[in-house]
Amino acid sequence: MINLNSLRDSRILITGGAGMIGSTIAQLAAKLGAQVTIFDAMLPAYGGNSYNLHGIHDNVTFIQGDIRDMDLLKKNVNGQDFIFSLAAQVSYVDSNIDPLLDLDISCRGHINTLIACQENCPEAKIVFASSRFVYGRIDYNPVDENHPFNCLSIYGIHKLAGEKYYKFYHDAYGMRTTSLRIANPYGPRQQMKHSKYGIVNWFIRLALEEQPLTIFGDGQQVRDYIFVKDVAEAMLAVSLTRETDGQVYNLGSGTGTPFIDMSRIIAQLIPGTEIKMVEWPADRYFVETGNYISDISKLTNTVDWFPQTSPEQGIAQTIDYYRTCREHYW
Amino acid sequence: MINLNSLRDSRILITGGAGMIGSTIAQLAAKLGAQVTIFDAMLPAYGGNSYNLHGIHDNVTFIQGDIRDMDLLKKNVNGQDFIFSLAAQVSYVDSNIDPLLDLDISCRGHINTLIACQENCPEAKIVFASSRFVYGRIDYNPVDENHPFNCLSIYGIHKLAGEKYYKFYHDAYGMRTTSLRIANPYGPRQQMKHSKYGIVNWFIRLALEEQPLTIFGDGQQVRDYIFVKDVAEAMLAVSLTRETDGQVYNLGSGTGTPFIDMSRIIAQLIPGTEIKMVEWPADRYFVETGNYISDISKLTNTVDWFPQTSPEQGIAQTIDYYRTCREHYW
Repeated sequence: MINLNSLRDSRILITGGAGMIGSTIAQLAAKLGAQVTIFDAMLPAYGGNSYNLHGIHDNVTFIQGDIRDMDLLKKNVNGQDFIFSLAAQVSYVDSNIDPLLDLDISCRGHINTLIACQENCPEAKIVFASSRFVYGRIDYNPVDENHPFNCLSIYGIHKLAGEKYYKFYHDAYGMRTTSLRIANPYGPRQQMKHSKYGIVNWFIRLALEEQPLTIFGDGQQVRDYIFVKDVAEAMLAVSLTRETDGQVYNLGSGTGTPFIDMSRIIAQLIPGTEIKMVEWPADRYFVETGNYISDISKLTNTVDWFPQTSPEQGIAQTIDYYRTCREHYW
Repeated sequence: MINLNSLRDSRILITGGAGMIGSTIAQLAAKLGAQVTIFDAMLPAYGGNSYNLHGIHDNVTFIQGDIRDMDLLKKNVNGQDFIFSLAAQVSYVDSNIDPLLDLDISCRGHINTLIACQENCPEAKIVFASSRFVYGRIDYNPVDENHPFNCLSIYGIHKLAGEKYYKFYHDAYGMRTTSLRIANPYGPRQQMKHSKYGIVNWFIRLALEEQPLTIFGDGQQVRDYIFVKDVAEAMLAVSLTRETDGQVYNLGSGTGTPFIDMSRIIAQLIPGTEIKMVEWPADRYFVETGNYISDISKLTNTVDWFPQTSPEQGIAQTIDYYRTCREHYW
């Protein structure tokens, strides 16, 4: 595992830094002695939560800002060494309901980010959070980075455009950008208000509230669940690895877990949880992409990082987290 | 060649309909007896030119409108049978200088178009003009539709997003959309004010003005030049072929022509034209994608259409056109 100590005293800006992944990066980086700035619009529907910064409030700078605000971005990227570009409209369901809002945040916001960096921190390393949703309907597994883009949502289309922006600013202007196609992240600090994204966390909420977990079909659909601490460490490791400049990588656990197995782990850890099997809805179009497992060999061959957390360990830590502080999440 | 007579009395809307390709479709469709509406913002920098509708002004409805104006779009798509969706920011050079303007026209404008059609003409057949620029740097020739998207411009990124929008609205909502990746179109009715796109036409202007044609390197770089009448006929043929719903096709001549050969055809047809060879500029990044030849077999296997015009014929017709009416173009 790469030594992250060289982040000490470095200046790090995290857009969307009050969300699940951003705040986990902030927690790690602040403890390593980095100078962390959180830039987050705190839009009510999304994942930003000031409790996510619990324990590091005094060690980070917090800017309530939106990546659609170019002037504020320009001011805050100034002098940064590392930019973690995580701000986004985060629900693929909502992206299909309101494509223009998704466009505004996820395309205009990221063009703004790149223009601001080009002007005020052209040497910074920039890591963009893309998503497995660029692949949409899956043709084969494990999915490598050359898999076709069968986007099934406006969210996925705009993540793909985002990647292409970051790649373009690398190729054309020499900026140090990397994109990561994140699989199914879960863990502490995710929003728990609605089920629009993050099914593992949502099932944990249901189980903690003694509600049943509802599974479509036989529950054999496979996902690549990755614990948020593994995601955060990967993003920090990528930021310290120059060979990643201009590249795109899958970021997942590399392991497929059937939906039913994930649910049973939760049910075992929260005794009394009922698992309810129901039929698939008639229109599966918006629900199911097909099984998904990341091929993470491109990333692990380049960066000294490997996922550390099994689903059992990650789910147990997530349950513990929300047991102690659920009043901050729902 | 498909019989286009079934377009008689059909209602056709062409966004960007005063530009080169749109007006050529309008000329053909109006003569076939279709009810044609032209929707064009007539932005000064782009290709819209009212002279392009010379001869059919009395047979078409003209709306000066911008695809960024959702209300006007909704009103005008109402009741249409065919939509040719050609409105765009058309210069890849300008897209890199002003990515946000390109985003606004080429992404927001096309989401608007789809939302308007979904609401007011959900059964219409919609043909979207994409571009070979989605491929960017070329890995192999001839280029089929599975070639990677090595976009080298914001223009190419947004054309790719555009295709994905049209595909998404087909897959998710059953709308009848098709995208065409157009190679290097040239011919009558293209703007001649600047050299930012359409090098064949630009060289014709230079030659008509007795200026030399400047060629980088040895002029062996290959392009797939397609005459605008062939493009227009292909788009009309696609609109009448149900099997094209939800698909993406290359649209080119299928033949590669070295830059030097294209230039020599112009020089032969306009005697006295000088061809000047110069070195490549130091930074070729924005200039050269590598040789490009379309593989058009997917299109020609599905649609009863084939390109009819050789470079010699097409360039001769283009020269004749501008000789008689250049005062309307520069």
